[in-house]
Amino acid sequence: PTLDDNTSDLSRLLRGLRQRYHLSNLSIDFPVIQKLAKTLRDGDWKATVTTLVTAVKPRAGDRRRPRVINIEAGDTRDKHYSLAFDIGTTTVCGQLLDLSRGRVIAESMAYNGQISYGEDVITRIAYCQKTGGLKKLQQVVVATINDIISELQAQSHVEAERISHITVAGNTTMTQILLGLNPQYLRLTPYTPVANFFPPVPAGSLGIKVSDHVQMFTFPAVASYVGGDIVSGIVGAGVHQRKTLTFFMDIGTNGEIVIGNSDWMVTASCSAGPAFEGGGIRHGIIAAEGAIEDVKINPKNFEPEVGTIGNARPKGICGSGLINTVAELLETGLIGQNGKFNQELPTRRVRSVTDGYEYVLAQAEETQTGSDIVITEVDIDNLMRAKAAMYAGCQTLSKSVGIGGCDFDQVIIAGAFGSHIDVKRAITIGLLPELPEERFIFIGNGSLLGARLTSFSTDLLDDARRVAQMMTNLELSENVDFMNNYVAALFLPHTNAGEFPRVSKRLARGPNNNPKTRVKI
Amino acid sequence: PTLDDNTSDLSRLLRGLRQRYHLSNLSIDFPVIQKLAKTLRDGDWKATVTTLVTAVKPRAGDRRRPRVINIEAGDTRDKHYSLAFDIGTTTVCGQLLDLSRGRVIAESMAYNGQISYGEDVITRIAYCQKTGGLKKLQQVVVATINDIISELQAQSHVEAERISHITVAGNTTMTQILLGLNPQYLRLTPYTPVANFFPPVPAGSLGIKVSDHVQMFTFPAVASYVGGDIVSGIVGAGVHQRKTLTFFMDIGTNGEIVIGNSDWMVTASCSAGPAFEGGGIRHGIIAAEGAIEDVKINPKNFEPEVGTIGNARPKGICGSGLINTVAELLETGLIGQNGKFNQELPTRRVRSVTDGYEYVLAQAEETQTGSDIVITEVDIDNLMRAKAAMYAGCQTLSKSVGIGGCDFDQVIIAGAFGSHIDVKRAITIGLLPELPEERFIFIGNGSLLGARLTSFSTDLLDDARRVAQMMTNLELSENVDFMNNYVAALFLPHTNAGEFPRVSKRLARGPNNNPKTRVKI
Repeated sequence: PTLDDNTSDLSRLLRGLRQRYHLSNLSIDFPVIQKLAKTLRDGDWKATVTTLVTAVKPRAGDRRRPRVINIEAGDTRDKHYSLAFDIGTTTVCGQLLDLSRGRVIAESMAYNGQISYGEDVITRIAYCQKTGGLKKLQQVVVATINDIISELQAQSHVEAERISHITVAGNTTMTQILLGLNPQYLRLTPYTPVANFFPPVPAGSLGIKVSDHVQMFTFPAVASYVGGDIVSGIVGAGVHQRKTLTFFMDIGTNGEIVIGNSDWMVTASCSAGPAFEGGGIRHGIIAAEGAIEDVKINPKNFEPEVGTIGNARPKGICGSGLINTVAELLETGLIGQNGKFNQELPTRRVRSVTDGYEYVLAQAEETQTGSDIVITEVDIDNLMRAKAAMYAGCQTLSKSVGIGGCDFDQVIIAGAFGSHIDVKRAITIGLLPELPEERFIFIGNGSLLGARLTSFSTDLLDDARRVAQMMTNLELSENVDFMNNYVAALFLPHTNAGEFPRVSKRLARGPNNNPKTRVKI
Repeated sequence: PTLDDNTSDLSRLLRGLRQRYHLSNLSIDFPVIQKLAKTLRDGDWKATVTTLVTAVKPRAGDRRRPRVINIEAGDTRDKHYSLAFDIGTTTVCGQLLDLSRGRVIAESMAYNGQISYGEDVITRIAYCQKTGGLKKLQQVVVATINDIISELQAQSHVEAERISHITVAGNTTMTQILLGLNPQYLRLTPYTPVANFFPPVPAGSLGIKVSDHVQMFTFPAVASYVGGDIVSGIVGAGVHQRKTLTFFMDIGTNGEIVIGNSDWMVTASCSAGPAFEGGGIRHGIIAAEGAIEDVKINPKNFEPEVGTIGNARPKGICGSGLINTVAELLETGLIGQNGKFNQELPTRRVRSVTDGYEYVLAQAEETQTGSDIVITEVDIDNLMRAKAAMYAGCQTLSKSVGIGGCDFDQVIIAGAFGSHIDVKRAITIGLLPELPEERFIFIGNGSLLGARLTSFSTDLLDDARRVAQMMTNLELSENVDFMNNYVAALFLPHTNAGEFPRVSKRLARGPNNNPKTRVKI
């Protein structure tokens, strides 16, 4: 009930909120009522309440119904914090936000504890079917979240009870597991999520170590393979706010893409595989200290020059490093457009092993691992499949809405490593469409970005809902057009040279006639 | 958020509810989502949902927002139950209701376990100020409630998980203690309740042994001493639905009264004391088996003839028995209009003891206790104070709204013993105003009645709220008019014979000239 009588502690509180802050139509969480009398008197009738906007307006004209979730004695308005999380299949990223100043004050990231139970969503879903499996996976991701919260608190010295809400974005499987919802039907036709929209959930009930009044918002999903992380990225990037024809791509384990603007949106999941996150790559690792990221290969002696994250000794190769390496191998003629090594070149860096050829990026004595770091033909093949899936998805989706080709006004690239990708090289291998460089925008972790911005703005809650509802999902797994496009894209950059005219022309000239490559070295 | 997407289990459910039952604007409790996928498939896509109307419409035009609190596989519509409780200071009464048939199927009553911590609300409030005191009293009343629930289940064989909500009415102190809200400010000026309106509370969180999805509705209160029990009684009796000028009295420990109709209501608590419930009476007990209820005294030999509840051997005297006894003592001249014994009469039933005189209602050899059951001058004095408070409250409240005298269209009498009161005798002692007998209506436990009816009808939820809001509370404790009226009423029936002209005339004729009394014996 709306509580507007005149004769109780609560009515005094509500009158104050109405008169001073024009807040009406409030609902009150019962624990607030339980501590109300003491808190009001402890603070000598000065108190700070925390309200939560839980209900997205169900129809125009309906009023929001803010919920009073906490009351504290005195004025604590400048100590108001929240948490934003991206729950990825591979990594979990968290930020501690200062709501009164609109700032990120601490940030941390960790591997999703579920990794030891399977690298991708399919194996995780399978694990959930074992007795106690779902509970186990739910607990380990919560443990990861709790570790990150501890780390954020250690960095910031913010007291736990000052955190008043959590926003979380993740793919559909990660979201369902976190919420304790069995994901088994996600991988069975007709690929049905339990729900695409979730009510706020008391975070403590899931095992997250925060105060009892903390509610967790979960980003809505579109379908089994287009989750809240994508909706969050779209909202975070503001795609829904502009008329600009946008191609949005989230380069993660699945590779989800969106085409659209403020009026319409279509989306698909490309099943790109984990190559961009270092998965399925012999020495692949996530984009962390020691990951080889920047690579240049001297076209004369074929010796590499590698740069790592944090300038540490090399430990492995991350997704962007992989793209850069393959582009360099291609430009220098070390591999052909089919991704196979040229065995005729005078270099000991290319060597034959049992399952094909490989190129040595760093020798054992230079690395942290004490072993050579190499890129193999299998690695290159995996990357080609991944980039082919993304590009074919883009073509298929474009065609489905009647757009000829891939001529977008802007391309927004999200992904944990997104800000480190070299656009030219990503175009070279055929991952990104051949468009002028200024049309590409990197937003890094889009899922985390949207979670953060939504934590600051209740309006974006409505936007998230609207975006999830307006997106039309195209199922690619049995789409013939997609399969044809995919096969055609299994080439560097593409079997159809017309898709990448400038790159194809340059490659046709050969490495020694490529002025750009020469200038670079 | 309203959940109306088209691609998930939840969306199918919501579409079904919208299309078949015109239910929209629903909110979903998270545990329902957690078991949704399995329940839908277990029941082969047939399921029964339980919805709860939580929000009273905050303003005209606003829509209700039903909450889905449970889902069960298959069709379980005919197994839908609820509990209604009156939480009295002395006794707790509970009923198990069959919601699909609109019937009471079991009923039970027990002493409120808090009695051993103090007989009235003031001592209970004082106990709550001790360390752990509030928690203790909260736990013992919950234990009483749980005992009653066990008893109701034993009577009915209804499974616990079929109970979907609880409605509770009680006075302000009982309500606050049950909810774990410290009542300390109720007895300090300005007598401030923590809140008069309460949100639904998960019953399990209070320790009540029911399923997790069960929510408890608590009747709203008007003020510190006019609680949800009175609001419930008014709603149960339908006072707010009629234009009839009504005097409503709840004859419990406090003695609350209401005057009004569908347009307006005034209320007051008369601090009548516990005499009507047997409190402060030497051999007073609650209206249970063995309680002396009916009493006739032979005006010739002054010998009593007593009837007890259940026709058991006498154990004590209940409130209605006390009224009947005093009326008989008065009519037979054993006591005077001042409540003192006439020591001149030829009977050994009246005897002198250290603190005055007493009348022997039952002799030791006839009783269950093995001792004489008597009524003392102190008992009579306590009853006179109690009835004087009620009558003075009625007069004061009447005058405050400009009604001359006590000429009501109807008098509704609530109270645990309400249905056993003899109207004529209650008029004789000056408890009830001297009106034609057909204007009196007994509703028994009004608090329980309202709780039961509200459990059956969501419309009454709105009514309860409206009634609580429309009632104007008159504080009698420092009201000079009330004090004057009270002193004037400390006489049988009243110092002002004009208030009770017929009784006064009859008494003036003396016992032997009273044809009515003669006929009675």
